[in-house]
Amino acid sequence: MASVDVPVALLGYGVVGSAVNRLLVDSGDDIERATGHRLRVVRALVRDRERERSYPAPDGILTTDFADVRDDPSIAVVAEVMGGIEPTGEYVLELLRGGKPVVSANKQLIARRGDELFAAASEASVQLRFEASVCAAIPVIKVLRESLVATNVHRVLGIVNGTTNFILTAMEAGATYADALAEAQRLGYAEADPTDDVSGADAAAKMAILATVAFGSRVTIADVAYEGIEGIRPEHVRAAHELDSVIRLVGAATLVDGAVDVRVHPALVDRHHPLAAVEGPFNAIMLQGDAIREITLEGPGAGGIETASAVVADMVSVIGTTGTGFLQNDACWRSLPPLPPGELRSAFYLRVEVADRVGVLAHVAERLAAHGVSIARLAQHAHEPGASLDIVTHEAPAGRVAAALADIAALDDVDGPPAVMPVIVDRGV
Amino acid sequence: MASVDVPVALLGYGVVGSAVNRLLVDSGDDIERATGHRLRVVRALVRDRERERSYPAPDGILTTDFADVRDDPSIAVVAEVMGGIEPTGEYVLELLRGGKPVVSANKQLIARRGDELFAAASEASVQLRFEASVCAAIPVIKVLRESLVATNVHRVLGIVNGTTNFILTAMEAGATYADALAEAQRLGYAEADPTDDVSGADAAAKMAILATVAFGSRVTIADVAYEGIEGIRPEHVRAAHELDSVIRLVGAATLVDGAVDVRVHPALVDRHHPLAAVEGPFNAIMLQGDAIREITLEGPGAGGIETASAVVADMVSVIGTTGTGFLQNDACWRSLPPLPPGELRSAFYLRVEVADRVGVLAHVAERLAAHGVSIARLAQHAHEPGASLDIVTHEAPAGRVAAALADIAALDDVDGPPAVMPVIVDRGV
Repeated sequence: MASVDVPVALLGYGVVGSAVNRLLVDSGDDIERATGHRLRVVRALVRDRERERSYPAPDGILTTDFADVRDDPSIAVVAEVMGGIEPTGEYVLELLRGGKPVVSANKQLIARRGDELFAAASEASVQLRFEASVCAAIPVIKVLRESLVATNVHRVLGIVNGTTNFILTAMEAGATYADALAEAQRLGYAEADPTDDVSGADAAAKMAILATVAFGSRVTIADVAYEGIEGIRPEHVRAAHELDSVIRLVGAATLVDGAVDVRVHPALVDRHHPLAAVEGPFNAIMLQGDAIREITLEGPGAGGIETASAVVADMVSVIGTTGTGFLQNDACWRSLPPLPPGELRSAFYLRVEVADRVGVLAHVAERLAAHGVSIARLAQHAHEPGASLDIVTHEAPAGRVAAALADIAALDDVDGPPAVMPVIVDRGV
Repeated sequence: MASVDVPVALLGYGVVGSAVNRLLVDSGDDIERATGHRLRVVRALVRDRERERSYPAPDGILTTDFADVRDDPSIAVVAEVMGGIEPTGEYVLELLRGGKPVVSANKQLIARRGDELFAAASEASVQLRFEASVCAAIPVIKVLRESLVATNVHRVLGIVNGTTNFILTAMEAGATYADALAEAQRLGYAEADPTDDVSGADAAAKMAILATVAFGSRVTIADVAYEGIEGIRPEHVRAAHELDSVIRLVGAATLVDGAVDVRVHPALVDRHHPLAAVEGPFNAIMLQGDAIREITLEGPGAGGIETASAVVADMVSVIGTTGTGFLQNDACWRSLPPLPPGELRSAFYLRVEVADRVGVLAHVAERLAAHGVSIARLAQHAHEPGASLDIVTHEAPAGRVAAALADIAALDDVDGPPAVMPVIVDRGV
């Protein structure tokens, strides 16, 4: 067992870094009581030592020289809370190669360079933990790796972006997309440039990490097909409501006969499904496995102190398991092929804008039938000019639905490409 | 680090025990890959070696003699899956005193004799884990102890009994209490004698364990005030619906200025609150803390394989952290006083059956005002004979509300004691 007093270091001392230091100080007694160790920040790498900090660091701790962290043999674990890919990635690699365990809150780094980083950690026999890189304080990585070790998780469904969930919830209450986005920006839930969130790219990075851990096979951002919420209009939200559902930006990682499918897209979620209850900027992840059926974890998916809470838990876990490296080997032990994207099966919601003429509905139905896609529910709403068809299909391969939609879009009486979203139904318990 | 092959034993080889053995065999590769260890059941204590088993044990493993488990020095961890208080408690004590780590799925044992058991574990420097004793596969104990070590949890709200949640959900769909209970029995969600579930006693035992872990102070079943769902009538469910709420049996453990309050009761839960979305036999636990705001864990709260999954995760955690005893010291490090029961503050829903006469409403309102309880919403419904008042109060100490209700029940125009339930509102994000 290490000594009671454990020197640790931070790369970065911004919002998250200063919150980590504060939690280590404020919760020092709790941590020592639970683990026998008191973690103390002895070095923090910053760009500017003079900048003001929300929780000031003690004298002499801030440094602008990475070597002060790397070369201090007393430092037992380093938390990377500086963000970015470079030079962050090189710093983390150097630390791991030098035998220092690292805890990272950096989603982009883990999702893009996980393979190198885990290889370095493995070679040096040190731990690399990354709970805070996905959904802040929600302990999904620990639960996947430690609690569900014997349950064969085959599907991960997640609302992993709070900005888009806030916008979609506001649209349910009647706001337009533009108004909801502006409100999210005003409240600090969305950046001035919201592209990374609303495009689904942020969610894709998180789903890549979750799929990697859940299935034990490397998934990078490049493997994740994603679609954002920019195209969601009030009429889609209303149509969802009529179908006793809500629209959510859902990340879905699925294992099908030994192949992996990971995607992010707006989906129609049945009102009785646990993900439909996730409102505002909250996140939730549902894990489905053989022995557990499903477990859903919900909480704030962002925030400085929430992220710091996960960083501290990982630091404590590293110190508490040094020597055993408990369950923190690289999650990747196999290399699974991607599922051809058209093969994933789902029910789908389709919205087709049509001319309000007799026979249009039959033409649309014929095109679906020609591709073997059968209709579960259909409603036609007249509006001036034209009409819209709201269709829910039975489960079908995504490729067949896409082919049918291409045919439908080519019909004379159809106005523009139809909107399409997978439908996520309740477990039906 | 222990050798790859790790002999383990079971006390009990019924539904859960045989599922534990099956998971250890079926997931043996996964566990070895993650931890370097392969756990193998070498002994299982049973009452009758000849009984048929759903997953048969290999020859020579079943024994009726506890000494075969206790005295085998090769056994690295024992899972107690036999249930009951005696002789189970003595067996567990003997194992711990003999230096064997124990994993228990036994809610009643941990809730009633936790102090002795943890003292014995501590004295012998071995681990006693009990994830499976609360809500089966939902990993709430691990999350509380390891992920939330720096977050100062001050409230735990839980739907921790699946039987009652199934009944209440069925009543929302229109069933009477008697019909819903019969359906729960038919589906195997309720016992032939459902008293332990519907009275709230089962939930009280789980809340005692959760409060102990969350607050670090010993809470036993005797400290938990509980009330069941036997008195819930269809008109209460309808009144809840009109208030945009649902009725749930909620366990609430609260830390107020250094004092502890733990209770279980039917509550009116706002439709936007995460606990309102928990349907059927599922369980959910919401943890509220300084750094995390709130994290909710939802999943199946019962079932043989689900419980076995948690037992296996604990066994693996014990083997993976032997030598460090990571975070598994006794959770109790302080002795907090109980909050006087009348002091807990909440909003309340009251339903008062009255004679349909002018002035009754004013009399009821006067009695509330006399005790300093102010009314947030009120609706009066006439029915033959009489009328009913549905009242939601502002937040007030429970004792004042109870005193006002006693006065109200004594009014000439009031028919029987009013129904009262705390109201759980949304976080309002």
